[in-house]
Amino acid sequence: MAGEFALIEHLLRQTRAHQSDHPPILGPGDDCALVDVTRPGLVWAVTTDMLVSGVHFLDNDDPHALGWKTLAVNLSDLAAMGAQPRYVTLAAAIPPVDASDTSWIDTFFSGFMACAQSFKVDLIGGDTTRGPRSFSVTAMGEVDPAKALRRSGARDGDDIWVSGSPGYAALGLGSKLGQWQLPEPVAILADYALHHPEPRVALGLALTDMAHSAIDISDGLLQDLGHIAVASQLQASLFVTSLPDCPMDVDPDHWQHCLLGGGDDYELLFTAPTSARERLQALSHSLALPLTRIGIMHVPKDNAHSTAQAGRIVDDVQVLDHHGHRIDLTLCRRGFDHFANS
Amino acid sequence: MAGEFALIEHLLRQTRAHQSDHPPILGPGDDCALVDVTRPGLVWAVTTDMLVSGVHFLDNDDPHALGWKTLAVNLSDLAAMGAQPRYVTLAAAIPPVDASDTSWIDTFFSGFMACAQSFKVDLIGGDTTRGPRSFSVTAMGEVDPAKALRRSGARDGDDIWVSGSPGYAALGLGSKLGQWQLPEPVAILADYALHHPEPRVALGLALTDMAHSAIDISDGLLQDLGHIAVASQLQASLFVTSLPDCPMDVDPDHWQHCLLGGGDDYELLFTAPTSARERLQALSHSLALPLTRIGIMHVPKDNAHSTAQAGRIVDDVQVLDHHGHRIDLTLCRRGFDHFANS
Repeated sequence: MAGEFALIEHLLRQTRAHQSDHPPILGPGDDCALVDVTRPGLVWAVTTDMLVSGVHFLDNDDPHALGWKTLAVNLSDLAAMGAQPRYVTLAAAIPPVDASDTSWIDTFFSGFMACAQSFKVDLIGGDTTRGPRSFSVTAMGEVDPAKALRRSGARDGDDIWVSGSPGYAALGLGSKLGQWQLPEPVAILADYALHHPEPRVALGLALTDMAHSAIDISDGLLQDLGHIAVASQLQASLFVTSLPDCPMDVDPDHWQHCLLGGGDDYELLFTAPTSARERLQALSHSLALPLTRIGIMHVPKDNAHSTAQAGRIVDDVQVLDHHGHRIDLTLCRRGFDHFANS
Repeated sequence: MAGEFALIEHLLRQTRAHQSDHPPILGPGDDCALVDVTRPGLVWAVTTDMLVSGVHFLDNDDPHALGWKTLAVNLSDLAAMGAQPRYVTLAAAIPPVDASDTSWIDTFFSGFMACAQSFKVDLIGGDTTRGPRSFSVTAMGEVDPAKALRRSGARDGDDIWVSGSPGYAALGLGSKLGQWQLPEPVAILADYALHHPEPRVALGLALTDMAHSAIDISDGLLQDLGHIAVASQLQASLFVTSLPDCPMDVDPDHWQHCLLGGGDDYELLFTAPTSARERLQALSHSLALPLTRIGIMHVPKDNAHSTAQAGRIVDDVQVLDHHGHRIDLTLCRRGFDHFANS
């Protein structure tokens, strides 16, 4: 491979073999791609995310899984809006060694395109440059703006729901970093959750007719629920007895930390009226995806703990034990911050 | 500044102060932004570019100018398509020092937003993470797909035109790297061209009614013209006597190298029928922007030099002296490759 242009050509050739049901008007290779929505009344949902070596992944991570995850975390943001993913761009900074021996970047790209094919999205443009390994994706999806799942849409009395098995990705990260050891069956699930997140696209699309608000769990359940609470000017109460159980032979303190404070799960956290419970249970069945009701949204009730401060509701999220008493969760509330010292 | 969320909040506050005539349906702060075109019949032109420290800029570059350029190079791609810029996303990897002392990133951001305001685009989303300094922008603009300026649109007999003063950015880069010294007035113009490129948005919009194809000069005049020639399956001939003159007291060899092989100019290179000459001269006058006619597009005439090889036209671009003889330009043809060793 001679350099930038040869590498881009090489990647574009692979791209042309994968095309969705809705190819762009003009694909990669010009100054811009040209795209349009497929139905009148739809608008674009747009999101962007960057993954950096040493922060979001390690250089010895499996490049195929990393390629998958690089796209999946962006599609997850579209899912959390209830949008149908359509088009993505990829900007990649890669060290010179990847340009002379393309096996790493080829494998990364095959994982990226496996995710693209799985969710029928087209790669419409990109940029490749020399630099410390990092990847930036922008994803575009279609949505009816009246039905888009905004963080600010939660209403007083809404149930709080979560999809799948949150907490496993953080269990997997701790195990990978040597912070703890996991029993065999949990270790396999945790490693898979960390490296192969499944964007909940079908769930998000269905929720546009059932839910009032949604977010994907990228920074931690408590922190992401806090974003909904603040945007909706409500308080969220979780019931500890409703939360997913600690897996067998896992330390309960580690589990609580991972479940409530761990990031990287990309499950959907959403609020819906109580009238939607039956439909949500049927949806869970049809998608073969657990949906768990874990709490309720309400106007702040405890003024001693929940005072508005500079427009934000303090203690926007609380966890109640089986007596209805608040549990102290200082350690779990930090969430995942890419600037925090680990 | 505590970290990622505080920094994003800090940047979003600045963003909210700048709004265009066409604010998004939903701006930054949710899982996605929501945007729509302003007129029926328009579609989105989408482009992405990444700038990496040590490759595209130096850490001691002026951060305000760098912020401007980071957005400008993306708007230039929209201009080359004839699109009206509307929305942009910004993903930024920045070292921890920028999160604790925000003066560098604040200044960078003010330059970025100055460019956004100047071209009336809204920043609709972003991502901020710890990492070696790099920036990735995706820009979206509106265009009538039937009028978009594709690289493949050049026709036999088209004039080749270039805007502004190509070559100065490369003169400035060579001077900055100590490769040569420039006389005072040229040095100022060259430094400005390198650090403060002006995306030719108004020109691109006007060209949708006059030109057949366009590209922005990011990699070098010969190389970018080659992209038009290959995409249009034509050959490009430049007349050395029509090219912009060497500035006074600049080495003619350096000038030829910068003019024909230097990147980073972001002027528009376009082809138009001879019938458009008068309108283009009037446009040049009304935009107060030089437009120079430098050559013609034609079917390959010299079979000895121009044989189709694996679908590509060899010698897709040639420069002719005042006798009509080809000039050897091996050194100028390399263009700007971000993987090449400098």
